[in-house]
Amino acid sequence: MLKTIWDENGVVFIWDQTLLPLEEIKMEIPDVTQMWSAIQRLCVRGAPAIGIAGAYGVWLSARNCQDDSGIYDVTLRDCDYLSTSRPTAVNLFWALDRMRAIIMRFQGHNANADELRAAILREAQTMVKEDHLVCQSIGQCGSKLLHDGMSILTHCNAGGLATAGVGTALAPVYWAVEQEGKAIKVYADETRPLLQGARLTAWELQKAGIDVTLICDNMAALVMRLGKIDAVIVGTDRVAANGDFANKIGTYGVALSAQYHNIPFYVAAPLSSVDLKTPSGNEIPIEERDGEEICHFGGRRIAPPNVKTFNPSFDVTPCELVTAFITERGVLYPPFSESLKNVFM
Amino acid sequence: MLKTIWDENGVVFIWDQTLLPLEEIKMEIPDVTQMWSAIQRLCVRGAPAIGIAGAYGVWLSARNCQDDSGIYDVTLRDCDYLSTSRPTAVNLFWALDRMRAIIMRFQGHNANADELRAAILREAQTMVKEDHLVCQSIGQCGSKLLHDGMSILTHCNAGGLATAGVGTALAPVYWAVEQEGKAIKVYADETRPLLQGARLTAWELQKAGIDVTLICDNMAALVMRLGKIDAVIVGTDRVAANGDFANKIGTYGVALSAQYHNIPFYVAAPLSSVDLKTPSGNEIPIEERDGEEICHFGGRRIAPPNVKTFNPSFDVTPCELVTAFITERGVLYPPFSESLKNVFM
Repeated sequence: MLKTIWDENGVVFIWDQTLLPLEEIKMEIPDVTQMWSAIQRLCVRGAPAIGIAGAYGVWLSARNCQDDSGIYDVTLRDCDYLSTSRPTAVNLFWALDRMRAIIMRFQGHNANADELRAAILREAQTMVKEDHLVCQSIGQCGSKLLHDGMSILTHCNAGGLATAGVGTALAPVYWAVEQEGKAIKVYADETRPLLQGARLTAWELQKAGIDVTLICDNMAALVMRLGKIDAVIVGTDRVAANGDFANKIGTYGVALSAQYHNIPFYVAAPLSSVDLKTPSGNEIPIEERDGEEICHFGGRRIAPPNVKTFNPSFDVTPCELVTAFITERGVLYPPFSESLKNVFM
Repeated sequence: MLKTIWDENGVVFIWDQTLLPLEEIKMEIPDVTQMWSAIQRLCVRGAPAIGIAGAYGVWLSARNCQDDSGIYDVTLRDCDYLSTSRPTAVNLFWALDRMRAIIMRFQGHNANADELRAAILREAQTMVKEDHLVCQSIGQCGSKLLHDGMSILTHCNAGGLATAGVGTALAPVYWAVEQEGKAIKVYADETRPLLQGARLTAWELQKAGIDVTLICDNMAALVMRLGKIDAVIVGTDRVAANGDFANKIGTYGVALSAQYHNIPFYVAAPLSSVDLKTPSGNEIPIEERDGEEICHFGGRRIAPPNVKTFNPSFDVTPCELVTAFITERGVLYPPFSESLKNVFM
């Protein structure tokens, strides 16, 4: 299985996802600043994976800290620092909260610096293992919604490359195909501006031998009208308490098309993406990125110089367009304000 | 004003639109084969412009024909040949029908080859002049729908570069801004895979000093939800008798989003794009192009090798999503099966 982020003999590695699929470059992350930048530049991306990247970032902070007596202050400060790398995915904050809890617990026990370092690394490794199991459970729960011969459409990449496991949105597909022998076809939106669908989803599904067809984002509505899509499954960066959710820009348009064509629209969401403290989508902060991402394509300029742009990285899809959330504890149906609350009980 | 296709001392020129905006290359079209290829490769594109390109192609056939006695057969055969360059825009067939009518009229009169050549060139030039006036009328009619301070969204390029005039979808914007002094903002979808919005619409509006913001196709729904769009105006390659219409891939998704957000959706359509012989959108042939258009840009690959693709160039938007058609003879409202028929009376 594809690894997204991992440690090997005290060194942290990621695949540089900005270069996939043309170059498969394993990149060492030497320190917390480089981890911040790897998250910000999308070398590692996908809500669950950036949570784990945040956790490993805290470990790099602890590992590199020369001042044993200052290690608590340094690591707590770096938790704050890492939380500024990207604003939308709640998993990052969730993971950093877990790291803060560890740090403060060890601080309370007056543990020494090496004990703290070991505990932080253990917690990051635990998150990897947990995420692996969460993905598997999402796959198992979600595959019940997939019948032999179905075609699904997905947007962006919520596959193995977005997690430490087999992914969220793609997990049901992997489970259905690999564990249950169902024939499932996937249509992958290319997902402008950074083409995670073309570069990552198409690549990982192809590697896994799953039937994948690449389309441009603006073809999704036609493909649905032609009757080629039986269900949509996407990932999410944050689910609000009412069931509104944020995901990669373009998800909202896909949801509108799915509703118009009466196609079920599923959101694969590990519970670490559910943020009951955010009442609705209106309160989810949406990252805006540099317009140069739009003005270039595959490294080549494609727009006139100095053109104005608007480049939101995410959009919010209102809960009424969601058929169900697929979580590691089962499939949740409306009313979501109840089912999302109850799943944590 | 921008010229798209024109003749100068017996030589036919176009701007090679595959290279804009990075390179502004004036390209001579020497013969009918090169014209076929220029249309097929989208060096000249936009429904009205490819009609005119077809007409000039017939003139190149006549001009280059060495065999005066065979000129009728040659030019009629080349009308058929040119009609195979692209299948969706009806303007091409409409223009070639006009050329066939000229050829057959002169054949009936036993006119000599030079008389025929002159008549064919005159007809192509007449189409240019007519298109210029048609665009102006569409602009004048459409600008009544635009109020000071409005923002419109457009998809692909139905501007000056798609016609011999100021465009179809952009004509109302040009008229409102330049003739009436209204402040109009335009959001331009980049329009994958060939990026006519980013490369052509953003470029020509910027050149004209009109406030334009470039977005990716998958951002249109969010931009509407944010209240940034007051109306959508798009062009069309063919309007069927019932009001269903074909336009660049992605138009259908924009129409679905506009309907959901109660935003008026206008289609600028010269009557040469209206095809009463096609009863509905189901009968409009949709061009499918090479999947490499999706997998490459500017010589750089952006998808894994051998990935399957689906690359329809157009989609059909059903008439129920259209607020009105803006034609050179006024704005047409539903029921379109009546208003479209009546406008020809």
